[in-house]
Amino acid sequence: MSNVDLQNLHSIGVTAPRGFSAAGAACGLKKTGALDLALVVSDSDCASAGVFTTNRVQAAPVLYDREVLATNRASIRAVVANSGCANACTGDAGMSDTRTMAEATARAIGCRADQVLVLSTGVIGQRLDIAKVRAGIAQAVPCLSPHGDADASRAIMTTDTRPKVSAISRPPYAIGGMAKGSGMIHPHMATMLSVITTDADISSELLDQALRAAVGVSFNRISVDGDMSTNDTVLLLANGASGHEIRTTQHVVQFTDALTQVCTDLAKQLARDGEGATKFVEISITGARDESDAVRVAKAIANSPLTKTALYGGDANWGRVICAAGYSGVAVEPSKMALWFGAVNVFANGTPTNFDEADSTRAIAGKDVFIRLDLGLGSASATVWTCDLSHDYVTINGKYRT
Amino acid sequence: MSNVDLQNLHSIGVTAPRGFSAAGAACGLKKTGALDLALVVSDSDCASAGVFTTNRVQAAPVLYDREVLATNRASIRAVVANSGCANACTGDAGMSDTRTMAEATARAIGCRADQVLVLSTGVIGQRLDIAKVRAGIAQAVPCLSPHGDADASRAIMTTDTRPKVSAISRPPYAIGGMAKGSGMIHPHMATMLSVITTDADISSELLDQALRAAVGVSFNRISVDGDMSTNDTVLLLANGASGHEIRTTQHVVQFTDALTQVCTDLAKQLARDGEGATKFVEISITGARDESDAVRVAKAIANSPLTKTALYGGDANWGRVICAAGYSGVAVEPSKMALWFGAVNVFANGTPTNFDEADSTRAIAGKDVFIRLDLGLGSASATVWTCDLSHDYVTINGKYRT
Repeated sequence: MSNVDLQNLHSIGVTAPRGFSAAGAACGLKKTGALDLALVVSDSDCASAGVFTTNRVQAAPVLYDREVLATNRASIRAVVANSGCANACTGDAGMSDTRTMAEATARAIGCRADQVLVLSTGVIGQRLDIAKVRAGIAQAVPCLSPHGDADASRAIMTTDTRPKVSAISRPPYAIGGMAKGSGMIHPHMATMLSVITTDADISSELLDQALRAAVGVSFNRISVDGDMSTNDTVLLLANGASGHEIRTTQHVVQFTDALTQVCTDLAKQLARDGEGATKFVEISITGARDESDAVRVAKAIANSPLTKTALYGGDANWGRVICAAGYSGVAVEPSKMALWFGAVNVFANGTPTNFDEADSTRAIAGKDVFIRLDLGLGSASATVWTCDLSHDYVTINGKYRT
Repeated sequence: MSNVDLQNLHSIGVTAPRGFSAAGAACGLKKTGALDLALVVSDSDCASAGVFTTNRVQAAPVLYDREVLATNRASIRAVVANSGCANACTGDAGMSDTRTMAEATARAIGCRADQVLVLSTGVIGQRLDIAKVRAGIAQAVPCLSPHGDADASRAIMTTDTRPKVSAISRPPYAIGGMAKGSGMIHPHMATMLSVITTDADISSELLDQALRAAVGVSFNRISVDGDMSTNDTVLLLANGASGHEIRTTQHVVQFTDALTQVCTDLAKQLARDGEGATKFVEISITGARDESDAVRVAKAIANSPLTKTALYGGDANWGRVICAAGYSGVAVEPSKMALWFGAVNVFANGTPTNFDEADSTRAIAGKDVFIRLDLGLGSASATVWTCDLSHDYVTINGKYRT
């Protein structure tokens, strides 16, 4: 939360904006007994927007939320989320479980089922234990509070080692959010969920526009090739409790800017907490012909197992970065590229510079690594965030279901 | 070499066809003192063909070989290869080193420099120690022999744990080959080299056509997205020593079929010896709309770190396979897919079947794993080969240069 303005906020997650409460409960979906059911509830109807996975295989809650938003996006009241089970590849029975989850929540907080959005994350291909979910909802509702964001953010964690929350104050309104997922290192899993709230008064149309713009340069900058999992979802709810209307173009620009800061903060937290990660890696591409070229090169590098294992091993093997740029699909020219590890220029004019190996090794030795590659072809740029690839990643994913 | 016919062959590598000799030498490019320089020499001029990396960053020997084949492909006499240094990202100086390597070989065996092709593999971004290379060539030439294929195949190894050779007898001619590389698990590295020889009498035009067809269903079926490294090269030399002319369509079909068997055998050996691999994995897609869809789905699965780590851990986490198919970019339909681990049908009609978890676990417990996914959309199919992703992969690549 380095770049957010926390003045006047009583909380730094989804309950930072006025009129939202949240809670977490442990209902036994996680074998460990940890929190595994989260509620986010608004005191009044919300305008809302959602961005969903582009995977052809979509989990039941994704299909359900898309249906609800298509018909009822201006009067959402709550989000119910569970971890421990993705409810994906579960067919009609899974869809029925999601409806039951929304209905149970609606009854407990006093609204209609089509005012409740549902999120699930965890193992693919297992049925949800709906009795446990019902118990979790019953347990969570009495705990709903304007300070419940901490519990809610923990209840959506799977292999995450810490909760991810963020908030920004733009008086008179605020934006708050939570997210879960181990980010870019495995963007294809049932991994990434985020719920963002605001007390600004804004239409669903403008929310949708702002969310797509913000996600494009934040969550989608820790993903690969635009691919997403069976469950990836970002939801944005606006209850208008601040009374501040977002109507003019200037308002929209300011709101989108604030939302982008919250999304970027959450996205970077996801990359930093990538499964088994020991290093946070920022990859900046400059001198590209256009932004999409810059993103493509940055993602090729960010997704290169050879680059990621070298960083883990503390080996400043810059040739792997140049190689990844070469196969990115972008028409790069080796003789025009220049590469920096931290402040150390290691490659220029088609050949290694006369850098000291000790300097390049030192440049990647810390927990935060900065790589910059100038393509020498234009003036566009883009930044992507990722982490290294460690032994622990293999350990975690070799036995995920056990 | 399960599917090749070895009758009448005195050797099972590049010297299986008549009129070829080979040798390996240790000239100090590898710190371990292992063989690191290989020669393959024909008694007479060869027709030839090459397939090269599509990486925009191409190593000096790739640029050089393309130039030689463009002007002189009907009179090639030798291939000289080194391991320990990729001679990539080395600019004009690297190109000059490659020329020197060809010239030294030409002088030693008595031909022109433009009759010699060059291969390099190893670390990117380091200059070749040309004095060592000269010494290696001088040392190898007196050792050239019709039984030198074993040494040559060892001299091109980097992280390979064993040499890869293959041969096929189609009297009166034969085809023999060697390859190096740890295959699909890191297709973007300076990894894959292969030299294939034949004593059939065939034009460079027909060789080129046969090689592209064979590589398309063999080496390119252990790669990802068609991406290749800075050095990946497959060379095919035909010296005509058998006197058997390949001219008719039927001859070409038979030759291409035999060549495809050798290439497929070598490609599977690469996948089986993937860095850190503990399992060989065959992924067959059936019921696709067309072959390119089948390949795309198979490669998405073969390249999924989550699928590969689960196989390593012995966890039959089939949801990850379905998820990878979903993000492959192919318009798959979850309700039409059916998935098998070995003979165990784990998923059909959009939901898990009632399989016994112990059976699916047993199905992936061995060293060879077979995964079949039927898309239920058509009648096209494709098979891709890969390996699992283990702790050793991370160890090997975290410290590759040290």
